[in-house]
Amino acid sequence: MNRMIYSHEVCRWDVWEITIPGPTDGNPFTDFPVSGTFTGKNETVKADGFYDGEGIYRVRFMPSFEGSYHFRIQAPFLTEGAEGDFTVLPAREENHGPVRVANTFHFAYEDGSPYYSIGTTCYVWALQSDERIRETLESLKEARFNKIRFCIFPKHYAYNLGEPRSYPYEGTPMDGSVLTDENFMVFMGKTEGNHWDFTRFNPAHFRHLETCIRELERLGIEADLIVMHPYDRWGFSCMSAEQDDLYWNYVVARFSAFHNVWWSLANEHDLMFQKTQKDWERYAEILCSKDPYRHLRSIHNCFSFYDYNRPWVTHCSIQRQDLYKGAEYADLWRQKYQKPVVLDEIAYEGNLQYGWGNLSAEEMVRRFWETACRGGYPGHGETYRNPEGVLWWSHGGKLRGESWKRFGFLLDMMKETPGHGLAPYPMSWDCVCAVPESEPFIPVKSYYLVYFSFMQPSLREFHFDDSTDFEVEVIDTWNMTVEKRGTYRGRFQVELPGRAYMAVRLRKRPR
Amino acid sequence: MNRMIYSHEVCRWDVWEITIPGPTDGNPFTDFPVSGTFTGKNETVKADGFYDGEGIYRVRFMPSFEGSYHFRIQAPFLTEGAEGDFTVLPAREENHGPVRVANTFHFAYEDGSPYYSIGTTCYVWALQSDERIRETLESLKEARFNKIRFCIFPKHYAYNLGEPRSYPYEGTPMDGSVLTDENFMVFMGKTEGNHWDFTRFNPAHFRHLETCIRELERLGIEADLIVMHPYDRWGFSCMSAEQDDLYWNYVVARFSAFHNVWWSLANEHDLMFQKTQKDWERYAEILCSKDPYRHLRSIHNCFSFYDYNRPWVTHCSIQRQDLYKGAEYADLWRQKYQKPVVLDEIAYEGNLQYGWGNLSAEEMVRRFWETACRGGYPGHGETYRNPEGVLWWSHGGKLRGESWKRFGFLLDMMKETPGHGLAPYPMSWDCVCAVPESEPFIPVKSYYLVYFSFMQPSLREFHFDDSTDFEVEVIDTWNMTVEKRGTYRGRFQVELPGRAYMAVRLRKRPR
Repeated sequence: MNRMIYSHEVCRWDVWEITIPGPTDGNPFTDFPVSGTFTGKNETVKADGFYDGEGIYRVRFMPSFEGSYHFRIQAPFLTEGAEGDFTVLPAREENHGPVRVANTFHFAYEDGSPYYSIGTTCYVWALQSDERIRETLESLKEARFNKIRFCIFPKHYAYNLGEPRSYPYEGTPMDGSVLTDENFMVFMGKTEGNHWDFTRFNPAHFRHLETCIRELERLGIEADLIVMHPYDRWGFSCMSAEQDDLYWNYVVARFSAFHNVWWSLANEHDLMFQKTQKDWERYAEILCSKDPYRHLRSIHNCFSFYDYNRPWVTHCSIQRQDLYKGAEYADLWRQKYQKPVVLDEIAYEGNLQYGWGNLSAEEMVRRFWETACRGGYPGHGETYRNPEGVLWWSHGGKLRGESWKRFGFLLDMMKETPGHGLAPYPMSWDCVCAVPESEPFIPVKSYYLVYFSFMQPSLREFHFDDSTDFEVEVIDTWNMTVEKRGTYRGRFQVELPGRAYMAVRLRKRPR
Repeated sequence: MNRMIYSHEVCRWDVWEITIPGPTDGNPFTDFPVSGTFTGKNETVKADGFYDGEGIYRVRFMPSFEGSYHFRIQAPFLTEGAEGDFTVLPAREENHGPVRVANTFHFAYEDGSPYYSIGTTCYVWALQSDERIRETLESLKEARFNKIRFCIFPKHYAYNLGEPRSYPYEGTPMDGSVLTDENFMVFMGKTEGNHWDFTRFNPAHFRHLETCIRELERLGIEADLIVMHPYDRWGFSCMSAEQDDLYWNYVVARFSAFHNVWWSLANEHDLMFQKTQKDWERYAEILCSKDPYRHLRSIHNCFSFYDYNRPWVTHCSIQRQDLYKGAEYADLWRQKYQKPVVLDEIAYEGNLQYGWGNLSAEEMVRRFWETACRGGYPGHGETYRNPEGVLWWSHGGKLRGESWKRFGFLLDMMKETPGHGLAPYPMSWDCVCAVPESEPFIPVKSYYLVYFSFMQPSLREFHFDDSTDFEVEVIDTWNMTVEKRGTYRGRFQVELPGRAYMAVRLRKRPR
């Protein structure tokens, strides 16, 4: 038997991993459960390991504290548990730990620094060519996205008829050459022609996803992993409960130790007609019991919301239900669920024939500001038809639209808001106003961000009190300009350019 | 005593009027009730007369049928009823009679020709200078509006601090020179400094309004008279029940005989805190019993709708209640009330600081199309600040915006729809589709008008059946172009330019 390999040092919130040679007979994915126990001064963590092919088993651990740790590995093929020690060093400067819910409605990294989510969706970017993946990472960086939703399983849908770079299971797929844009619905969820062994994973598929998660980590981007979804022609959406559970356990064992992972139980769970609420609750149970790091957990709807009040749901991951309004409900959903509201799908910028994929850039940016100023977190996607058939929403690649260029500006505004997070404030029926979350009203708020959405006022009057000085800025959210207008007190009017997508920021001036 | 004056001939639906000299002592407005009874082959009509000042009493009648009529005038100062005959000639070519509800959700003139309402609001255009009134009429004509909402009483509100050209009562107004844009709310509804005799009307005020109604009639425009409103500093909104009833009776006696009159009981009834629902029902009773011609009746809300199910309400006159959605509910309101839905206020094009008055032209036109394609009738208003302080919404004058230029195009589309009126059709969740009202579905509709609103699809697939030929046109509702795309059958795709405000019209081709 070869030696186990592991490092004696790891930084806080990085992945410590031990490589254990083991048996290849039988079914190594099911026959030899491997796990580790990790004990430091402040925590004892039990984590499952997994079979990574070619006689290699691995156990991963993400330490949440600095200092000395002792580990003990359990496996049926180790007659006595292997054990040892390692040291957890301070976190790398750029690693702030996993993202947590903070302040009821917002997020913070575990080290306490705020995290303001500006997400995008590229369902199967990770299953494209190396070159495309490189391109996607470049685009993500330039756009300043800090979260990306993507799938573990390949996707079958309009504009997505190609084969993925790899499959999650051993076996062979149906012949995809019969597919056309017209007939793809016929093959939805079907398994004819597919031959998979749902008890044997393809480790290369998962290893590759891990490479992608690490690449995102390097860019400071959260990997919002969509574990299940209905857009399937390989049968991955129609497995048995036992097969599902095996999959969930494998996924959790492989990915949990990456600090930037979020769990999205499903994309459009309500279109997975094979699954019942019991199933979703069972998957959630696996997550809650097997992910020792309590990564963020949610589940995304098509038509009807999952019950976001369920205790295992850490935040709402919402697709808007109405063609016209969605972002505009962010504040109501906050009230209802008392959790962070992430609008992962408020329709996409693009020009498809479908209402979910043909927003103008202006409307996309407007929805981002509406969401943010109502105390929620918006998500992007892009669906422009093009001769190459490469759509960001599905494949990643190059961004073709105009909205993505404007999210960094919004992100900066979020970061510049005092305290931690924006809270909706009922200033008037005809504007959207954000103030710092949880800030007492004495005698006025320190900061008001007033957004006028599609309206085009040429002036706006304000009157908070007669004594507070406010520094006034006029913000063009589309052109990304901030114009200082000086200091005002009492009742005052701010002249505006009479075009849409403007905001006014008022900051209490220190005395 | 001078001779009574009347004409022996009048055209159908025109105003027949008799001038009766009478007493000037006491209070002629209350002491000498005058009325007439008009009997033709097909109708007997009783109509109240009114005192028009300087010893002149008048009774008006609008004949609904051709042929010989006999009249009899009753008045306490006529010892025996004066009577006589006149002949009703065929209607003038341009007079189609009063507008009625037809087809549940739509309107038709009494002669049966459809009336598609494209309205605007100029609250007190009629109380401006002759020159401004001339300008307004020119603008109305150019914009192809066919309905205008306006007030009988003067209006006191932001941008409306000036005095009207005349007052409805004998007396003197408060000193308006104390008013500023900042303090005008303080004088809302107040009566201090005003001295009016609410039992004595100023006939010149009403005569002038009649001139305006006649001018509108010449342009084929319906006069949607707002009888009461809360924007008042003269006390006209705070009269006693008795005074109100005197006013209502006078208004009905004077204006009913004009075929192009509609009754709007109030603008923003729910802001008239002095009035109860009982009051509104009493006014409605006066209208129903005293207006022999059953002109259209409605009442307009600010926040909460009046109960449009009330039998005296002929159609909904709605102000949208939500900042974002309004036009989008037209089809729901049709379902709910089973009456024509007129969205008289879906916010105005302009640049005021108020959310009701700062829509872009694009959004205004979008709301018009949304309303129309959902089987309702949209209304316009314009509120651009300007150095002259002349805002269309209040004063009329020149139109400064961009939306008004595009309503004639929509009106033509409405007229080109087969049958009578557009009905919403649930084609898909992500477009708005209108079909001809009440047309059977055998095997497809003859006509589909598909509107894409703010979305920007670059194509759209259609499939009605495999045998019907459709003539396809691509409509740019903003640029007002109609592009013929030829004939299609079965499943077909229509390429679109990938910008907002587009529509596709599909007309079944005769075999």
